[in-house]
Amino acid sequence: MDVVPIAFRPPVVTILDQTRLPAAEVTRELRTMEDVEDAVRTLAIRGAPLLGIMGAAAMAIAAETLGSAPDVLTAAAHRIGTIRPTAVELATGAAGALRFALEMPERERPEALWEFAERYLSRRITEDRQLSAFGAALLPTGCAVLTHCNTGALATGGIGTALGVVRVAWEQGKLTRCYATETRPLLQGARLTAWELKRLGIPASLLPDTAAASLVASGRVQAVITGADRIAANGDSANKVGTYGLAAVAHRHGVPFYIAAPRSTIDPSCPSGDAIPIEFRDAREVGGWGDIRWAPDGIEAYNPAFDVTPAALIAGIITEAGVARPPYEQSLAALLEAP
Amino acid sequence: MDVVPIAFRPPVVTILDQTRLPAAEVTRELRTMEDVEDAVRTLAIRGAPLLGIMGAAAMAIAAETLGSAPDVLTAAAHRIGTIRPTAVELATGAAGALRFALEMPERERPEALWEFAERYLSRRITEDRQLSAFGAALLPTGCAVLTHCNTGALATGGIGTALGVVRVAWEQGKLTRCYATETRPLLQGARLTAWELKRLGIPASLLPDTAAASLVASGRVQAVITGADRIAANGDSANKVGTYGLAAVAHRHGVPFYIAAPRSTIDPSCPSGDAIPIEFRDAREVGGWGDIRWAPDGIEAYNPAFDVTPAALIAGIITEAGVARPPYEQSLAALLEAP
Repeated sequence: MDVVPIAFRPPVVTILDQTRLPAAEVTRELRTMEDVEDAVRTLAIRGAPLLGIMGAAAMAIAAETLGSAPDVLTAAAHRIGTIRPTAVELATGAAGALRFALEMPERERPEALWEFAERYLSRRITEDRQLSAFGAALLPTGCAVLTHCNTGALATGGIGTALGVVRVAWEQGKLTRCYATETRPLLQGARLTAWELKRLGIPASLLPDTAAASLVASGRVQAVITGADRIAANGDSANKVGTYGLAAVAHRHGVPFYIAAPRSTIDPSCPSGDAIPIEFRDAREVGGWGDIRWAPDGIEAYNPAFDVTPAALIAGIITEAGVARPPYEQSLAALLEAP
Repeated sequence: MDVVPIAFRPPVVTILDQTRLPAAEVTRELRTMEDVEDAVRTLAIRGAPLLGIMGAAAMAIAAETLGSAPDVLTAAAHRIGTIRPTAVELATGAAGALRFALEMPERERPEALWEFAERYLSRRITEDRQLSAFGAALLPTGCAVLTHCNTGALATGGIGTALGVVRVAWEQGKLTRCYATETRPLLQGARLTAWELKRLGIPASLLPDTAAASLVASGRVQAVITGADRIAANGDSANKVGTYGLAAVAHRHGVPFYIAAPRSTIDPSCPSGDAIPIEFRDAREVGGWGDIRWAPDGIEAYNPAFDVTPAALIAGIITEAGVARPPYEQSLAALLEAP
């Protein structure tokens, strides 16, 4: 069964409430800017590309409810962009919608903004499919794949990036099983990826993050595929913490490690992984889950949100415009110049 | 403050209830075989070497409460050895106590069994100290160390193995900080190691298992030290799942990875890691904690309890009789022959 994380029925945006998954499938109707702010802040909707779509759709909600005068829409775009300061895609989606709307006559702007949001979503769906087809072509028939974190429909609004590759390989009859890590501390693998795989009917096994090295060593997987949050010009890739360890072990065992990410993730202004700043998060995420504490009170924590996988460990970087191979300086630059 | 996981005041064995940690420090008094069975089954007492001590002490309880006739003590040793079939040390401790008791006149057996249990505990304390001193000598001044799972007093009854090394290095002023993984799925690091470190006043940081590779890559630790459950003749070492991944990343970064374990962990009859059987545990341990479920119902799991670290990744194996260095065939055999 398909996963629909966002849908538009003007004047309403319907989202799947990701905080309720996997226990319950509950949709939420967003009609006002306050609804959007609450949904984004509580992580009812999350995932960088999906937040880009949300940012664009929020501009349509703003035009419907607040009006379409230039100063109103400009203020709305700013307001949307600051709901989660580190989620830059929210601001990108809103800014793109704003530019588009300001070129229209004022009375046409609400409808134009709904169309813009629809096209934003459609492009994500198309590009995820393109990326996933490029990725699936890399996999051998009868393979099993290990992935990390959540990179499916719940993250992008399309079929996903790394999980999109898994899905297309499954549709093509090439994939026998997907192994998914729990992904501590926020458990996106256990909560979201496991739910998506189950819903898609793809044979899936969840594993503790500690078991990934043993899994790769056992020969059970023929590829490791993850997403990326930022790819430097030399191919070094920042992604959810834990990715680097998976890539290092895959490399030891000659199992190819692939990154699957939209071309927009490539940052040509960033020369290497050393230049990627790493966000450190609240110590309370470690040693517990929600209100439950396993660890003694007051213990310090080392809790980076991301790690950097050196380009030398990456067999290929899969995008909607094709697959970059080492040396990445050249291949990534060529991908960025492709139509 | 010291950690006292077991103490003897005949006819009572007092244990620290490890299921209540770190939230509460509750001791339990064991007076009968039923008390022992319940404590072992519920994991109120756990850790291989500590269960050896418990096995010996349970024989003293048996003699006090059931009598000291040969058939009674033989049946008791069998009963103790089968409470947790995979915890072989429980049987080893009980069998050693039985052999000792049967050489005594029947009326002297209860007192002799208490003395045997005391000596068993004393030997552990002495050997942990010896092992830890050998280990601490390997560490540079001003170092920080990463460890995995729980290998402290709560596991051995002495000061511990890998965590004993950390403790002695701290006492010697060489150690600045100990990093401890959460150790999914059973969270021994978050629950037990973090508690021991805090209680000993050692600066400590807890990390999600996913963050270990990033920690090692960051240069924050100068050594990685874990325990072992079984060491093959060639040095391949089985330990808590997750150990292999830590060793592989440490090796990539030139950070020494050490195993710290009692000599009794070396199995000269096992030629290599390939011959070590790996226990797979219940899928319900993955995707949740206790009664809380994060993952969708019915998801399959890959949940090995242990993994095997190849000898080539191990810089040294620290025991109470000294440190074995590669090539391990020779050095481990020499350690086993040492007095």
